[in-house]
Amino acid sequence: MGKIKIDTNAFLYPMPMVLIGTTVENRANFMAVAWVSRVNVRPPMIGMCLGKTHYTNPGIHENKTFSVNVPGMDLLEKVDYCGLVSGKNDDKSRLFDVFYGELPHTPMIQQCPLCMECRLVKEVDLPTNTLFIGEIIGAYTEERFLTEGKLDSRKMVPFTLTMPDNNYWGMGNNVGKAWSIGKNLKAGK
Amino acid sequence: MGKIKIDTNAFLYPMPMVLIGTTVENRANFMAVAWVSRVNVRPPMIGMCLGKTHYTNPGIHENKTFSVNVPGMDLLEKVDYCGLVSGKNDDKSRLFDVFYGELPHTPMIQQCPLCMECRLVKEVDLPTNTLFIGEIIGAYTEERFLTEGKLDSRKMVPFTLTMPDNNYWGMGNNVGKAWSIGKNLKAGK
Repeated sequence: MGKIKIDTNAFLYPMPMVLIGTTVENRANFMAVAWVSRVNVRPPMIGMCLGKTHYTNPGIHENKTFSVNVPGMDLLEKVDYCGLVSGKNDDKSRLFDVFYGELPHTPMIQQCPLCMECRLVKEVDLPTNTLFIGEIIGAYTEERFLTEGKLDSRKMVPFTLTMPDNNYWGMGNNVGKAWSIGKNLKAGK
Repeated sequence: MGKIKIDTNAFLYPMPMVLIGTTVENRANFMAVAWVSRVNVRPPMIGMCLGKTHYTNPGIHENKTFSVNVPGMDLLEKVDYCGLVSGKNDDKSRLFDVFYGELPHTPMIQQCPLCMECRLVKEVDLPTNTLFIGEIIGAYTEERFLTEGKLDSRKMVPFTLTMPDNNYWGMGNNVGKAWSIGKNLKAGK
């Protein structure tokens, strides 16, 4: 099939949705972010990318921490709301029950199946965005989201985002084991 | 419900799977990566994170480019194979039809619904990993993956990874429009 060129403003398919927690002007604030990834194995680190003008950024600069909260589908509307409205104009912490772990000024969301509190370790300045890299200092879940001691995404019910069509998606079926199903090709090499 | 602490080696749910293309020792090579994210709006940039000892890394250092290829479900076994076997030990380019865009030494995969060729702009050294940040110079798809001129994930059929359970997942149902469904909460403020 013939390849065609499209806009270089292209995206990953699909992108995980999280809520970034910070304290800004002495108030817990949460922001919806899909540009987020693990970036280091040991110690565990997460990178997440924000436009430079967001209300969240000064809170990270001040406290040198942020939290990453993975929401379940039951929070879909609230997550979208957190992406629509700036903390400048609304107290978004009213949408959730907030709890704290080891790091001060690092609010996490009781209703999220996975919450990670991160200490800022590096900030990468890019033309329109800032990439914040944090070490995961504490990770929190509940027994009901575990299967054999591991987080079970079928119990967490996370959702994803695609751009530029701007749609949210559920997770589909299990289609195979990683670091495993490719072994079939080794045999037929 | 009561929160419990878990291993800080925690992950995003779910993570998008891509194949990173490079030229290493004069041969096209492809590596499976799930730690990847957009990191800048203008110009469009992608960040992706590799362990420091991978076969791919010297190829990026030498050519200052890499490609990001989003595979469809029909490539699931091949993608997993690319995560199981190092380019040191096998010519993984034999698995795909390779094409090139504007950047030399930056192989892309004909069979992938979305391919992005990237020029390296920054490298962030972290304790066990290197975060490579590249500007998207060219993006390629086919007419059959578009709906109204935009990439349509239902036609692309991407898949995702969860860790530490190491499972691949399809995409589920459309559950709402982003920057939209949260407006319901604004009204009921």
